Amino acid sequence: MNVDGVPYRSIWVNGDGISVDVIDQTRLPHAFEIMNLKTLDDACVAIRDMVVRGAPLIGATAAFGFYLALRHDASDRGMQTAYDLLYATRPTAVNLRWALDRMHQTVRRLEPEERAARAYAEAGAIAALDVETNQGIGRFGLVLIESIAMKKKPGETINILTHCNAGWLATVDWGTATAPIYMAHDAGIPIHVWVDETRPRNQGASLTAWELGHHGVPHSLVVDNAGGHLMQHGLVDLCLVGSDRTTRSGDVCNKIGTYLKALAANDNDVPFYVCLPSTTIDWTISDGRAEIPIEQRDGSEVSQVIGKTSDGQIAAVAIAPDGTPVVNYAFDVTPARLISGLITESGIADANERSLGHAFPKFSARPG
Amino acid sequence: MNVDGVPYRSIWVNGDGISVDVIDQTRLPHAFEIMNLKTLDDACVAIRDMVVRGAPLIGATAAFGFYLALRHDASDRGMQTAYDLLYATRPTAVNLRWALDRMHQTVRRLEPEERAARAYAEAGAIAALDVETNQGIGRFGLVLIESIAMKKKPGETINILTHCNAGWLATVDWGTATAPIYMAHDAGIPIHVWVDETRPRNQGASLTAWELGHHGVPHSLVVDNAGGHLMQHGLVDLCLVGSDRTTRSGDVCNKIGTYLKALAANDNDVPFYVCLPSTTIDWTISDGRAEIPIEQRDGSEVSQVIGKTSDGQIAAVAIAPDGTPVVNYAFDVTPARLISGLITESGIADANERSLGHAFPKFSARPG
Repeated sequence: MNVDGVPYRSIWVNGDGISVDVIDQTRLPHAFEIMNLKTLDDACVAIRDMVVRGAPLIGATAAFGFYLALRHDASDRGMQTAYDLLYATRPTAVNLRWALDRMHQTVRRLEPEERAARAYAEAGAIAALDVETNQGIGRFGLVLIESIAMKKKPGETINILTHCNAGWLATVDWGTATAPIYMAHDAGIPIHVWVDETRPRNQGASLTAWELGHHGVPHSLVVDNAGGHLMQHGLVDLCLVGSDRTTRSGDVCNKIGTYLKALAANDNDVPFYVCLPSTTIDWTISDGRAEIPIEQRDGSEVSQVIGKTSDGQIAAVAIAPDGTPVVNYAFDVTPARLISGLITESGIADANERSLGHAFPKFSARPG
Repeated sequence: MNVDGVPYRSIWVNGDGISVDVIDQTRLPHAFEIMNLKTLDDACVAIRDMVVRGAPLIGATAAFGFYLALRHDASDRGMQTAYDLLYATRPTAVNLRWALDRMHQTVRRLEPEERAARAYAEAGAIAALDVETNQGIGRFGLVLIESIAMKKKPGETINILTHCNAGWLATVDWGTATAPIYMAHDAGIPIHVWVDETRPRNQGASLTAWELGHHGVPHSLVVDNAGGHLMQHGLVDLCLVGSDRTTRSGDVCNKIGTYLKALAANDNDVPFYVCLPSTTIDWTISDGRAEIPIEQRDGSEVSQVIGKTSDGQIAAVAIAPDGTPVVNYAFDVTPARLISGLITESGIADANERSLGHAFPKFSARPG
């Protein structure tokens, strides 16, 4: 998407045709800096230190990191080292493993001297596939937004609430929940986005607000507490959120607080849609609340807030008394009954097993 | 309540028997400091600069400020000046006006030389009345907590979720939503409190966590987003919140985000009770959503977070890109249908006009 009028992706091949550039997301939203990745080690650092984040972008970065490794050592042993080091950067990231397996499968039977070139092409294909997936989500979501626009007066603004950052910075381009937003905006439909700040890590305030602002999409930052009031007063026409994991029955595990917004949408007849690549559907589980373990993260994310001081330094400030006990759940599960629909790259499915099965017959036929 | 074992109120007469002490709440939770108020001007500054906050405490401080003024000038003109200056500190605070009117009524027919002594007694009576009211709320809430305890195994912890600071720091003592918590804790019932941080001003993280910690009540700080997940997983037995304004039909206007917690409580069969002095009931209105205008506050409360830096300084940090548009609603309305009951100093009423009318026949008989 655009950064002040210049189109960017979150990862791309440098002008030298060899190395790889990424946006340093640890510096956002207060500085926009590019980091150049030349080696396997550079790629490992970028993933581990969260220079890149978001499952699809982590996968793409790992793929390019694998390629960078093979440029220096394309032996079987070099390949295995690259796989192991990249995998160890964030072992719980499903896309990371998927991308590495795909890279490894693609090149392992080739002669070592052919491997780097093939890896370069394959990493590009992985990135392109992500862009294509998100464009698919965007196109189906756009139809939904157009249908809402048709019920309004011509030129009347459509207010969309989103939570966390399921934006282009988490993917290679377009994002998931933001893809319909960017497409509608680019198509000239008047859009305004309510951006939940998304405590504790504030990805809404820092990343989604940054993305939308630089692409030129009208938006307002609100605290996570505000969504219910907005919906009660007719100020939200549509909720669009992402998903980290979706059950075959349509339950959605997403950033903590998503469930509360779904409840408010339900209570006020606001459509609540989840945007997801079909790769996030876990066909092996059905009851999200019972079957998805919720990660607990460090309490300092809650008791401290990181931001920019008045003299431009990045600092953490404590908002609670020293030693306050903290519990920090990272995700919650929104039951399918609260979800109006699941927007995937293959179309919009109802949030239930039958509808998802029709949309993805190949996967759903697997034994549960 | 206790601060590290020493009993405190939020306002009290100094050992000199003349001046008045308050806890400087602008310094909490990072420092515990007492401010001595000797003059009308001191009291005005304390209210205006939010050294004291919370409707009941503002009322009590204004009452004592009126008394301090009369010590220096008890003439009709001095009295009027005191009234006007104190009223102007926070003109939207209902309790402020109520306390000033009561003080004025009490002393205005007396000879000037009798006024200061009478004002001293009356300010003390206003403070005592607030303590008594909260103790009433606490006693009725305690019965509720005891009834929950009886359904659990002996010794099993009762988890209570609260939002914002309806604590003793907002009142003269006990607090409203916290009164049942302190009474249950002091009675030896094992309590654990989930403290919502309460963005944007973080009164939960800063004040409620401080209160509970210093009184010794087990608690955990969570982000506002977490409550739904906690309730889905059986980790909340009871929600207790305060109210800024209550309609005669039982709708509750309270800190932004209260409505989202009520929705989650409703969805998971968790009892959701509101603790309120009957003075917050506005008998003239019935539909909270339609009739209560919601204050919008400065956007910097959202885009910046204030806390303690690693070197002990109090600083604000920006969490969003410079210039990000912000919308900042301070309150929301929880419809009566989501409320299990209203805990008042006169008993627990159902959240509807009939039940409130029975509890307070004198007021409810007023023409709507």
